[in-house]
Amino acid sequence: MNTADLGLPVDVPSTALFTDHYELTMLQAARANGTAERPCVFEVFTRRLPEGRRYGVVAGTGRVLDAVANFRFDADQLEYLRAHEVVDEDTLAWLADYRFSGDIWGYPEGEVYFPGSPVLRVEGTFAECVLLETVILSILNHDSAIAAAASRMSSAAGGRPLIEMGARRTHELAAVAASRAAWIGGFSTTSDLAAGYRYGIPTTGTSAHAFTLVHDDERAAFEAQVASMGPDTTLLVDTYDVENAVRTAVEVAGPELGAVRIDSGDLLLVAHRVRDQLDALGARNTRIVVTSDLDEYAIASLAAAPVDAYGVGTQLVVGSGHPTCSMVYKLVARARSTEPGAPLEPVAKRSVGGKASVAGRKWAARRRDAAGTAEAEVVGTGEVPDALGADLLLVPLVTKGEVVGREPMSAARDRHKAALEGLPLSATQLSRGEPVIPTEYHLDAKG
Amino acid sequence: MNTADLGLPVDVPSTALFTDHYELTMLQAARANGTAERPCVFEVFTRRLPEGRRYGVVAGTGRVLDAVANFRFDADQLEYLRAHEVVDEDTLAWLADYRFSGDIWGYPEGEVYFPGSPVLRVEGTFAECVLLETVILSILNHDSAIAAAASRMSSAAGGRPLIEMGARRTHELAAVAASRAAWIGGFSTTSDLAAGYRYGIPTTGTSAHAFTLVHDDERAAFEAQVASMGPDTTLLVDTYDVENAVRTAVEVAGPELGAVRIDSGDLLLVAHRVRDQLDALGARNTRIVVTSDLDEYAIASLAAAPVDAYGVGTQLVVGSGHPTCSMVYKLVARARSTEPGAPLEPVAKRSVGGKASVAGRKWAARRRDAAGTAEAEVVGTGEVPDALGADLLLVPLVTKGEVVGREPMSAARDRHKAALEGLPLSATQLSRGEPVIPTEYHLDAKG
Repeated sequence: MNTADLGLPVDVPSTALFTDHYELTMLQAARANGTAERPCVFEVFTRRLPEGRRYGVVAGTGRVLDAVANFRFDADQLEYLRAHEVVDEDTLAWLADYRFSGDIWGYPEGEVYFPGSPVLRVEGTFAECVLLETVILSILNHDSAIAAAASRMSSAAGGRPLIEMGARRTHELAAVAASRAAWIGGFSTTSDLAAGYRYGIPTTGTSAHAFTLVHDDERAAFEAQVASMGPDTTLLVDTYDVENAVRTAVEVAGPELGAVRIDSGDLLLVAHRVRDQLDALGARNTRIVVTSDLDEYAIASLAAAPVDAYGVGTQLVVGSGHPTCSMVYKLVARARSTEPGAPLEPVAKRSVGGKASVAGRKWAARRRDAAGTAEAEVVGTGEVPDALGADLLLVPLVTKGEVVGREPMSAARDRHKAALEGLPLSATQLSRGEPVIPTEYHLDAKG
Repeated sequence: MNTADLGLPVDVPSTALFTDHYELTMLQAARANGTAERPCVFEVFTRRLPEGRRYGVVAGTGRVLDAVANFRFDADQLEYLRAHEVVDEDTLAWLADYRFSGDIWGYPEGEVYFPGSPVLRVEGTFAECVLLETVILSILNHDSAIAAAASRMSSAAGGRPLIEMGARRTHELAAVAASRAAWIGGFSTTSDLAAGYRYGIPTTGTSAHAFTLVHDDERAAFEAQVASMGPDTTLLVDTYDVENAVRTAVEVAGPELGAVRIDSGDLLLVAHRVRDQLDALGARNTRIVVTSDLDEYAIASLAAAPVDAYGVGTQLVVGSGHPTCSMVYKLVARARSTEPGAPLEPVAKRSVGGKASVAGRKWAARRRDAAGTAEAEVVGTGEVPDALGADLLLVPLVTKGEVVGREPMSAARDRHKAALEGLPLSATQLSRGEPVIPTEYHLDAKG
């Protein structure tokens, strides 16, 4: 499917140039001596979680599948590569016909991961696999970083709804992907209309300080908003004086006022005061939304406060301190020839400066105790032990070039919730710590 | 100009949905009571620089101009808004005809900024200005964050070329904007083909570890690369053992070998050893490129090392610790009526919780000493003092809806270099500190 056909605001006609220059020069050199056609296995994994984090969240898989399907070089792109002498004519001709024809397996979207988890495994010829490195990493590194932050915030919110409102703090298209990842991680709504349009995420929002300020006074602004949106709207009450604003808000909207929003100050203190004031005014069902530079810690600190919803902007879209995931895409096995049946041999960069990789085509399983709680992430090569056969994590996403792993986003969101519930309780502690389960390697001598 | 017509991989048919839901609900409410047509002034500024940073860098202006020009609601987008009842039919009809018809002034791209600098000023009716908030902030907050990191890295590199190679660490389209911002901030090249295609930035790259590993041995890989790309290529020498690899590299390519790349280990130590070895092998002109998790501090630490170029990935695209800029878009003045000649009145949210703004339509100038070195960022309202008239910073970017501020990216790059040279020397210190010049306010009593 070429999503450009759908006319969506976040589509691109082709993903083929979201690619590092060296992928193409490697392709050209490998084609000249025949290694380009060697069967290969590439894997995506991280060597570590961001410092102190207890689990990672796989997100972006659905976008990866779109990117692979749309990875085609059109005439303009080929002409660009020709004009800039990136590769030779023979390679350009090959690129013109490029379609990924191999297999991709991966952790399903929303699943959690740990250091060494092979979250994606790409199999095919060297030529067809190496080209996909950059765009696959871009998507997984970005989206998984956002989803991990969203997941922690969602745990901290303890069931109260979370509104994603970070579009203005990040690249306008990264924002759309961030809304998607946040929703998978547990957020309820987004402020970003493009995310609503593209992914069907419910959008929300009522007014900003500018709306109050453009009016002659706060009462006029509240009257205009209630006239336009009805009393079940959310009035922003911190433009001038919160206490006065809350009184005016209830006078204007009546006790049926939907919500008030507080966007500054000591939220814990102010929320309590506003709750008391609303109750005293008879607006017992009026909700309180807070939205000022929240992160998972600030959300947690408001657990006992009378807050009904949280709006999160900056810290969501910057991954709450970890805006990328350090996922890498490494060749882990290749055949020594293109003869049918040539065995795959494990390969890895030798450990220098801490950049070690584990060679070999891998499987992964989550070992569980009798109660079903995860005990370890087991990453192995060769045969899968019988005891782990039911707990394998990788699923087929692309088979012989055909995307087979599409699913609704709600499946990823539900899966993430279930995956988190299957971890030890300490997974959702916000304090810094080690990964909540260890990664164990089960390496076959043959790799 | 609708850049979608150019068929570029980073285009979108319309930027109109890169907008928060509440911009549209405010529009609807303000249209109902007439405030939508009040003349308004919105300004973009930051309250502070990221902690320890001495200056900010305006980047993204060129992209803002494209976004404003492409801010048009097409039929599919209007249908989405209708189906989801975001706004009413009357507002939809207004949106269908929306074209920004006001004025935008701003710091020209590449200029430096300080807390309170009015880096963009948007003037028109409330309705037409409020809609642009989200996409303008998305672009400026992202691009300026990257450019600031790039600028510091560029200073640290002291004239040695910097290669931007962070595409895989951020959203695939944010990566393209990041390459652009990095180039403005002083980088020389990018790995990202989409950035080359879209913006004409020179692209570069040769091979990764996977290329060495897919071959039977390192010599075979080097031979393949040199056969394909010629001896003036860059060979990656840290897959197995650096010393062996350097020897093999020179044997294969001869002393005309273009460069070797080191991607792991103690770069300071390894660079010296490799330089000595290359010289001993007669490869005195072979350059050394280093590329392992560099940031501005790591670059600076290699100042005395025999390094010829730096490749920077992760830390560039995440803004070296500050992936966003906290720029805000605030209503600072509005008329009380839509009568012709109605005076603009300054407005501002009252200071609560540190979110104070300075009311009034502002000018800005950089006051300089006799030697031409900046002494202060002067931000004012009302009349400009004669002494500052020659140092005003804002330039017209959009006039009566027409984009007038387009310029080649090289103008922004050159401007940034000149702006930095006009700051006190301590601007480029990497250590944490205060903004290198203070912001002084020159506020007219009338605002």
